[in-house]
Amino acid sequence: MADVPTGLWLIGARGSVATTAITGLLALRRGLAPPTGCVTELPELAGVPLPGWDDLVVGGHDVVGTALPERAERLADGGVLPHRLVEAVAGGLRAVDGEIRAGYHPVTHRGSQADAARRLAADITGFRERHGLARVVVVNVSSTEPPAPDVAEHDDLAALERALADPERAVLPPSSVAAYAALRAGCPFVDFTPSTGIALPALDELARRERLPYAGRDGKTGETLLRTVLAPMFGARALRVRSWSGTNLLGGGDGATLEDPAHAQSKIASKARGLDALLGKDVTAPLHIDNVPDLGERKTAWDHVSFEGFLGVPMSLQLTWTGIDSALAAPLVLDLTRLVAAAHAAGRTGPLGALAFFFKDPLGSDEHRFAEQTRELYRWAQELA
Amino acid sequence: MADVPTGLWLIGARGSVATTAITGLLALRRGLAPPTGCVTELPELAGVPLPGWDDLVVGGHDVVGTALPERAERLADGGVLPHRLVEAVAGGLRAVDGEIRAGYHPVTHRGSQADAARRLAADITGFRERHGLARVVVVNVSSTEPPAPDVAEHDDLAALERALADPERAVLPPSSVAAYAALRAGCPFVDFTPSTGIALPALDELARRERLPYAGRDGKTGETLLRTVLAPMFGARALRVRSWSGTNLLGGGDGATLEDPAHAQSKIASKARGLDALLGKDVTAPLHIDNVPDLGERKTAWDHVSFEGFLGVPMSLQLTWTGIDSALAAPLVLDLTRLVAAAHAAGRTGPLGALAFFFKDPLGSDEHRFAEQTRELYRWAQELA
Amino acid sequence: MADVPTGLWLIGARGSVATTAITGLLALRRGLAPPTGCVTELPELAGVPLPGWDDLVVGGHDVVGTALPERAERLADGGVLPHRLVEAVAGGLRAVDGEIRAGYHPVTHRGSQADAARRLAADITGFRERHGLARVVVVNVSSTEPPAPDVAEHDDLAALERALADPERAVLPPSSVAAYAALRAGCPFVDFTPSTGIALPALDELARRERLPYAGRDGKTGETLLRTVLAPMFGARALRVRSWSGTNLLGGGDGATLEDPAHAQSKIASKARGLDALLGKDVTAPLHIDNVPDLGERKTAWDHVSFEGFLGVPMSLQLTWTGIDSALAAPLVLDLTRLVAAAHAAGRTGPLGALAFFFKDPLGSDEHRFAEQTRELYRWAQELA
Amino acid sequence: MADVPTGLWLIGARGSVATTAITGLLALRRGLAPPTGCVTELPELAGVPLPGWDDLVVGGHDVVGTALPERAERLADGGVLPHRLVEAVAGGLRAVDGEIRAGYHPVTHRGSQADAARRLAADITGFRERHGLARVVVVNVSSTEPPAPDVAEHDDLAALERALADPERAVLPPSSVAAYAALRAGCPFVDFTPSTGIALPALDELARRERLPYAGRDGKTGETLLRTVLAPMFGARALRVRSWSGTNLLGGGDGATLEDPAHAQSKIASKARGLDALLGKDVTAPLHIDNVPDLGERKTAWDHVSFEGFLGVPMSLQLTWTGIDSALAAPLVLDLTRLVAAAHAAGRTGPLGALAFFFKDPLGSDEHRFAEQTRELYRWAQELA
Repeated sequence: MADVPTGLWLIGARGSVATTAITGLLALRRGLAPPTGCVTELPELAGVPLPGWDDLVVGGHDVVGTALPERAERLADGGVLPHRLVEAVAGGLRAVDGEIRAGYHPVTHRGSQADAARRLAADITGFRERHGLARVVVVNVSSTEPPAPDVAEHDDLAALERALADPERAVLPPSSVAAYAALRAGCPFVDFTPSTGIALPALDELARRERLPYAGRDGKTGETLLRTVLAPMFGARALRVRSWSGTNLLGGGDGATLEDPAHAQSKIASKARGLDALLGKDVTAPLHIDNVPDLGERKTAWDHVSFEGFLGVPMSLQLTWTGIDSALAAPLVLDLTRLVAAAHAAGRTGPLGALAFFFKDPLGSDEHRFAEQTRELYRWAQELA
Repeated sequence: MADVPTGLWLIGARGSVATTAITGLLALRRGLAPPTGCVTELPELAGVPLPGWDDLVVGGHDVVGTALPERAERLADGGVLPHRLVEAVAGGLRAVDGEIRAGYHPVTHRGSQADAARRLAADITGFRERHGLARVVVVNVSSTEPPAPDVAEHDDLAALERALADPERAVLPPSSVAAYAALRAGCPFVDFTPSTGIALPALDELARRERLPYAGRDGKTGETLLRTVLAPMFGARALRVRSWSGTNLLGGGDGATLEDPAHAQSKIASKARGLDALLGKDVTAPLHIDNVPDLGERKTAWDHVSFEGFLGVPMSLQLTWTGIDSALAAPLVLDLTRLVAAAHAAGRTGPLGALAFFFKDPLGSDEHRFAEQTRELYRWAQELA
Repeated sequence: MADVPTGLWLIGARGSVATTAITGLLALRRGLAPPTGCVTELPELAGVPLPGWDDLVVGGHDVVGTALPERAERLADGGVLPHRLVEAVAGGLRAVDGEIRAGYHPVTHRGSQADAARRLAADITGFRERHGLARVVVVNVSSTEPPAPDVAEHDDLAALERALADPERAVLPPSSVAAYAALRAGCPFVDFTPSTGIALPALDELARRERLPYAGRDGKTGETLLRTVLAPMFGARALRVRSWSGTNLLGGGDGATLEDPAHAQSKIASKARGLDALLGKDVTAPLHIDNVPDLGERKTAWDHVSFEGFLGVPMSLQLTWTGIDSALAAPLVLDLTRLVAAAHAAGRTGPLGALAFFFKDPLGSDEHRFAEQTRELYRWAQELA
Repeated sequence: MADVPTGLWLIGARGSVATTAITGLLALRRGLAPPTGCVTELPELAGVPLPGWDDLVVGGHDVVGTALPERAERLADGGVLPHRLVEAVAGGLRAVDGEIRAGYHPVTHRGSQADAARRLAADITGFRERHGLARVVVVNVSSTEPPAPDVAEHDDLAALERALADPERAVLPPSSVAAYAALRAGCPFVDFTPSTGIALPALDELARRERLPYAGRDGKTGETLLRTVLAPMFGARALRVRSWSGTNLLGGGDGATLEDPAHAQSKIASKARGLDALLGKDVTAPLHIDNVPDLGERKTAWDHVSFEGFLGVPMSLQLTWTGIDSALAAPLVLDLTRLVAAAHAAGRTGPLGALAFFFKDPLGSDEHRFAEQTRELYRWAQELA
């Protein structure tokens, strides 16, 4: 699939993750940096027909106006991107910025959500045509939303579309409007956040009808990654985990968003589902997400695991993970774009459970154990190869 | 294989690991404690024909004289064993202590090493006959030795046996005398320490000739366990580990033994081989083992992993593992006894690479990745089942 | 003041802190343990006329009925007390248990709070007379209460006493009923918890009128101790602390009590006041207290301090404190009893600000810096000497 | 003393610490950064007649040739200095670089050490005259040397000077040649490293004869700073520290130098003296310094403190300090220059024990407790004010 021009359309295209992904893609394309963190460059995935770095064309939606080169400069000041690299790809950033369109914002939007979705879809199809792209993968990397209230229309596509047409209603959260628009534009969709996005029965129905694959949700980049690696160890060694306590300190926009308990709720629920699945429900697992603005783009997570060994002896493990969220997420965004493009080309539809490897709360899979997810990814890749 | 009386012969039978294993076995047999930490009780190993807790009869060699009940009391004071449990099984401990014979000590021994080995083998065969045992698994849990100097006789059984007969020479370290004696007595052997033990070509030759299986070496119970779980994660995510620094604080007899740099050398070499195999040689990996007597039986390991993410951004992971070495090791000693007994019954010979799951420096296997070792163990167990 | 029989009356006399303090006192008296953790045994406090270990007679109130010997056994199982010690002082524990009376419980109490206070005071004066004590120091070590609502009567003793007489009202929280009763019985009072206790203007008025000293509040035993030691270092080195994040994992009764957000509020407020005083208000300082039952009497606190150095470079400090709350608190309870007894004998009245050394939220002092508190304690001790 | 032109002559003027100090001084002078980390800007030191930032003129010796602007660029890449700042003061860096002369190197030097010292002293006096400076403070920030062997001439100035004149001998290590030259040039001297430098009786004799003050040694910037803050807390609370284990991971030039065990020896000895003084000799205190090149200028130290509380209960404290050595050291270099200049102006001679606050291994003081050192510094400052 090298030489097949492929679009990457980012929801939240001027955010930290998107800016890092775009800067990195431009750098990779020019050989200015090695593909560290890019899973699709591992020998285990060789042979999968993926679009090359040169084949990817980027555009997107965003509700903020700060241009990409300026965003990248700020990330360089924060230590996320090397200054030299940002300077070297400044022209490329400006070009991508020209492909960013105004996102859907429920407060400022006038008209029905169906109108909004039509406009968003038109932006994407325009982009596809303008660049002669074989396909466009839409990836949501915008800010985390609060959990959406359940409404009956979420379970049925026909009912949903009636509600969308009603200018008095806002039946979908913005992430799901974006997912709906992507599907209507004939595009595969990736949910990189814990927002509702495509995770509604009505949207699954639409994806299957349109024969589109999708993947999600909530990129697994730090504390949860460690948990899905370590929890199976305790099981395999018959050690009894009694409590797994976690504190996450975040700065940046993510920290500010998650300071609002309603928004944090989505994230905490997403993290907790994984731990429950891995360890069972009788493990005490307090979890905190704190906004600590001075950390900037850095993220520090502390986990304390208390477990019982032979004859009930108590022992413990502590972990401190200090990372930069955008730098962890960005290469996975590029990986997912390539893999979902390949899946679409191969005619896969519906949730891609084999991509559970990438997600805290995988759609289409109940597997949370990282080693098993890795094996499943490689198996799937061989099928595609 | 339930109801098949099986012997467990411990080299270092009055050490902390042995005392904990014996106390635990007695408690398990009477239902006083759940089998936490016992891998052989997991559903994944159900169906393997293992000796039951009631079928195991314990004896051993040791060079120290403190009786088991007294050793167990001390471990209870140190928080390794519950006082209540030690009191409840005091009679059983006394009985096992009656089956402990004087170990081989190179300083006090008079005569050739062949003489010594004959005496050790006679102790084991006497035990086997006295209790009518189908087989005896010999497990080395004695103090770590310094690395043995290479001598030509280690590579050839005939030459080795000539040297053993020479009363002027001590061609084998004590752990290897024990292994030789075990094989001569027709017993499978398990090396739970990093000492030389059975890991010599001449002894492998003997094991194969006698059609005996063996397993080793150096039980994987803490820092190395974590490393073999976590290192593959960095690889699977294409993150570049730059350094993996470790400090181990130990008290107890282990701490005192490893304070001697010559003894520590065996342990450090054993740990380093695993990291090299997992991450390659270009990772900076300083490693320290410190004797900190006030920690008693507790062991604290701190690991600092520095790695590079997308576009070269530096990140880090820190781990602090606080455990009790004997409590981590003891159930694995029981597991290995049962599994090696089953392998012997099934006619397996030579190094049991499928038991790499249990060891820092696996014999008969190059696999260090814990998830792969787990899978291999289950696969092997199904073969036996 | 050696040889002056002195009473220690504990509110919450069967709790973990009280049980540890009593067991320890009995052990110290018999020379079974060194006075580790007892500040009053330091050379810097030599010369202060303190009651000796033999001079202290213990009694108290509690709302629970489990006898002291049984409580001590449980603490020994949890690793707080050595089993041997508990056995050795079992007789002494029984004797003290005989001096414990039913505490005031707002739910089961019938009659006015004045009635309750009279009964509590009578228990204390009876104890004083029965044992011919020169004085009785009353120390509150009962469970943390939620913050008490402000009511006007708290500011004026006459108004308060009118309200206390009204059987329809419960104008004081239980800790303040206890403080009021102590003062009415002519006893100095120590608030070892963050509950309201004596910290009301009306009770301060009563203490001064009765010429009684008091001290409080909220014993400083772990995370806050470290903060008051470390925060001044950043100041003295002109380093700018940007955030100080904390997570406390607690088991035991304390964990269960503080799981209720209303109760945790008192503790969190008490901790936060110290950090504000030390670092100013512009430091981000999220703080969590989690109930993790499997930790039992153990307590683990993790602090993450993010600070700026020269030219704005970000740096960090992490702390993990793993302690046993009762073992940290108990010797301070004995110290405070001796010091407050000495202060009473010397005619001191009102809040003893010089004892800020012992408290998270010191009464009668604005000094939170530990080194300054230490100096002030030694200065005050020399005055008394 | 504002408006009194004062020289700062750096031994190792192109090293990381010096480059950071110079860049910072230029930035402070132009108001581009606040004086974070500069103790001399605290209100407690107001009133001391210090040279202002504008009054300081910088020169120095170095054996390496990379120019300061280039060094500063590299430090900016490593996150030690903001890129913007380095660009803003590039002209100033070039100017200072013009004042750097070739340092003394024992391998390449031809002639006696007396010749070398004369040349070094002439460089300093030339600098003083060229800029019309009231005084020049010489500060050693060059790489750590191995401990110097004891020779009799170190104890007697006359004997030392005879040996210096002998072209066949190298009686002094380079740091002491630099100190000797400084004193001969009539300059106060500061030892910011653990090298021998001025810490020889013969050089003390010379300093007193020349009526010059000096200060040292080994700037206290991280792990040891924490230790001197925390160790007194354990003492004040009568807690018994049993072990204090430390591991230091360093990159950069410092890491490479200290990888050589001979060089590390100086540093380890310097650190150990402090802990012994604070806690006594019976505390187990393993200490490691590891070279971990990928950490660059970052430094991570982990300390594990094991202590006993009431009734012997074991507890622990862990610390992880993650800092940038140069950023911690540089403002102290500026502070020391100003304070030693003021001491010289005030006629102080010999070791300035009141500056123990700044050093791991203070000359002229036995006080290691940080709070007491702080108090002593403030008291001394008030004397000068």
